[in-house]
Amino acid sequence: LEKATLQQIKEQNRNLVFKIIRERLNTSRAEVARISHLTRTTVSDIVSGLICEGLVSEVGTGLSIGGKSPILLSLNADARHLIGLDLAYTRFSGAIVNLRGQIREMVSRPLYSYDSDNGLQVAYEIIDHLMQVSNRPLVGIGIGTPGLVSTKDGIVINAVNMEWRNFPLGKLLQDRYQLPVYVLNDCQASAIGEYTYGDNYPAVRNMIVIRVGHGIGAGIIMDGQIFQGDGGYAGEIGHVVRVQENGLPCRCGNAGCLETVASSGAVLQRARQLVRCGHTLWGSEPGEVTFETLEKAFQAGDPLLRPIILEAAHYMGMAIANLVGALNINKVILTGSMTGFGKPWLDVILETANRNMLPRLTQEISIEVGRLKDNEAILGATALLANNYSFLFK
Amino acid sequence: LEKATLQQIKEQNRNLVFKIIRERLNTSRAEVARISHLTRTTVSDIVSGLICEGLVSEVGTGLSIGGKSPILLSLNADARHLIGLDLAYTRFSGAIVNLRGQIREMVSRPLYSYDSDNGLQVAYEIIDHLMQVSNRPLVGIGIGTPGLVSTKDGIVINAVNMEWRNFPLGKLLQDRYQLPVYVLNDCQASAIGEYTYGDNYPAVRNMIVIRVGHGIGAGIIMDGQIFQGDGGYAGEIGHVVRVQENGLPCRCGNAGCLETVASSGAVLQRARQLVRCGHTLWGSEPGEVTFETLEKAFQAGDPLLRPIILEAAHYMGMAIANLVGALNINKVILTGSMTGFGKPWLDVILETANRNMLPRLTQEISIEVGRLKDNEAILGATALLANNYSFLFK
Repeated sequence: LEKATLQQIKEQNRNLVFKIIRERLNTSRAEVARISHLTRTTVSDIVSGLICEGLVSEVGTGLSIGGKSPILLSLNADARHLIGLDLAYTRFSGAIVNLRGQIREMVSRPLYSYDSDNGLQVAYEIIDHLMQVSNRPLVGIGIGTPGLVSTKDGIVINAVNMEWRNFPLGKLLQDRYQLPVYVLNDCQASAIGEYTYGDNYPAVRNMIVIRVGHGIGAGIIMDGQIFQGDGGYAGEIGHVVRVQENGLPCRCGNAGCLETVASSGAVLQRARQLVRCGHTLWGSEPGEVTFETLEKAFQAGDPLLRPIILEAAHYMGMAIANLVGALNINKVILTGSMTGFGKPWLDVILETANRNMLPRLTQEISIEVGRLKDNEAILGATALLANNYSFLFK
Repeated sequence: LEKATLQQIKEQNRNLVFKIIRERLNTSRAEVARISHLTRTTVSDIVSGLICEGLVSEVGTGLSIGGKSPILLSLNADARHLIGLDLAYTRFSGAIVNLRGQIREMVSRPLYSYDSDNGLQVAYEIIDHLMQVSNRPLVGIGIGTPGLVSTKDGIVINAVNMEWRNFPLGKLLQDRYQLPVYVLNDCQASAIGEYTYGDNYPAVRNMIVIRVGHGIGAGIIMDGQIFQGDGGYAGEIGHVVRVQENGLPCRCGNAGCLETVASSGAVLQRARQLVRCGHTLWGSEPGEVTFETLEKAFQAGDPLLRPIILEAAHYMGMAIANLVGALNINKVILTGSMTGFGKPWLDVILETANRNMLPRLTQEISIEVGRLKDNEAILGATALLANNYSFLFK
């Protein structure tokens, strides 16, 4: 509870009108008034302000339902731009994104060295480039990074791949670019991206998004908000869900973690072992085994690779059953490189998850692959900024 | 987002002032103004209203810090009363509770028959009695019941012990007593009780409360609110957390559920088996084995019972590690009959949980036994009503 003031009423009603316009392809002042329960006069005043700021445009007239034809209003999606970055394991990418989550410019750079300075330089390069080509007012910069992040103060507490420890990434970027910066865990960014732009919003209020890539992590959306937990670790299921009591050692120091069997890092390691033992992955040349090699071999039906991938899916299904059961969240979205193994992988996940859930839950659960390809973390990192009205209306 | 109005401002500021007064043993108008950022005049007006309604009293003068001595204000905790019920497995209890969560009258009745009519009759008896002895205005009735509940419309969807299915408990009680009624899952009620009255509020925002009794269930407090999930099942860890791949069959139809090894029902069953095989539980007479017999035998050091209890604790620890890891909630409170096994039981939980968590998490986690004895569900069921200002200020 906080003190309520007249100024807050004004801002809240403006935000409400803006939200209604933004969530629709187009609408009219009358419709906005009906949905918001605000008077026509209040709506008209607020809309005038939004048009002045360039955020909303009149885009024609709609069908009359008796009386004058209504003037249609629409979000001016490119009135503001945002910059989003996804600092993935071996490749950083960044994009200019508009207010509807459309990507206007995209750039990516491989990461050859993992020391902390190099990581920062590559991020600078990407943002420098995007700032140069940007031709609209920028709202801010959003960053999704692996590891543990304190979003509140923009500090990367621990990102193993970059050797970042208590690294003030937010402040460094803020000082360099003079823009608001949000830094958050990449899986949490993925969740916000899929939630905001993946066709479920706003009907769905709770959602679990699991990024199954080199690492495994979840983002948990509760009542429309990302839940970060006490320290920002919420959703770190790759290392906290123990799937095998006497399993393989994990990079986290424990053993039998979900990541040791269900991640792309894990299946890559096991496939390389096959190759060292003399197996030739179907459809591949001898040489380095990359993740793309695996995808090809799996498609081709490689009989030794198949059980590895399906076992990975089995454990993923177990983990999902536990999470969904404990939280009773019905919507599960999967993203990340492992989704490249397609329907056979997903089918085993579905079957295992269903078998391990309360029967009455299985009918309501939906587990599917996300729709934003590999851009969900970039989009999510910008969505947090785009949804913060205090940044939008300065 | 909803339309904001002047009326809302008034109510929000009144609620804020009331909340500040209630959260303190006593305070002054000046302090309330300082904390709320409201003007002295606004605070004085609101306080006058609260005094009129009997909710707040002037209780003396405080120390001057220069200038006039401030008049002390205090919540009039017995200005309103609430009725709370805990429909536990074999015994229903109910209480009259005041606005500070103090119990003013308590009554309980054993449940001899489990058909749905009898359950309702026993609940009626308890509430009838409490209504009769009540001598203050009643805010409403809160009910914690095992099973799946739709709190929104007061329907018990499924309570195995009472044979209740889609049972409109809320409406029945509302019609009979003409008071607002909240029905919710007993473990979720426990969580609200421990959160509101267990000395952690309001500093702690996230909390997991696990009721380990005949069944096992959790209540998850996120950002100060109970999280119920899409269907109200959130926290049902007794059946969704599978701790043994080829475990005992469970009453839910699956096998290897947490409840089959870690609940008081499970250890009772295993102890009875020992007795059937000729073992005499230490410190007990031959005859029926009750939970109290177990507690006594465990205290006395019974060597066959001990591993059963500690194994139950081990699996409880595993489940806690998974939950805490996935949600990054640092505060875990245990309630329910299994807490009667005291420190040895808790120690094994702590040890197992710590061994199964990311090392950096273990320092921050606190797992302890709740402080409200067996009243936490009753108190929680009333707290939801007591915190709903629209019921309080009619």
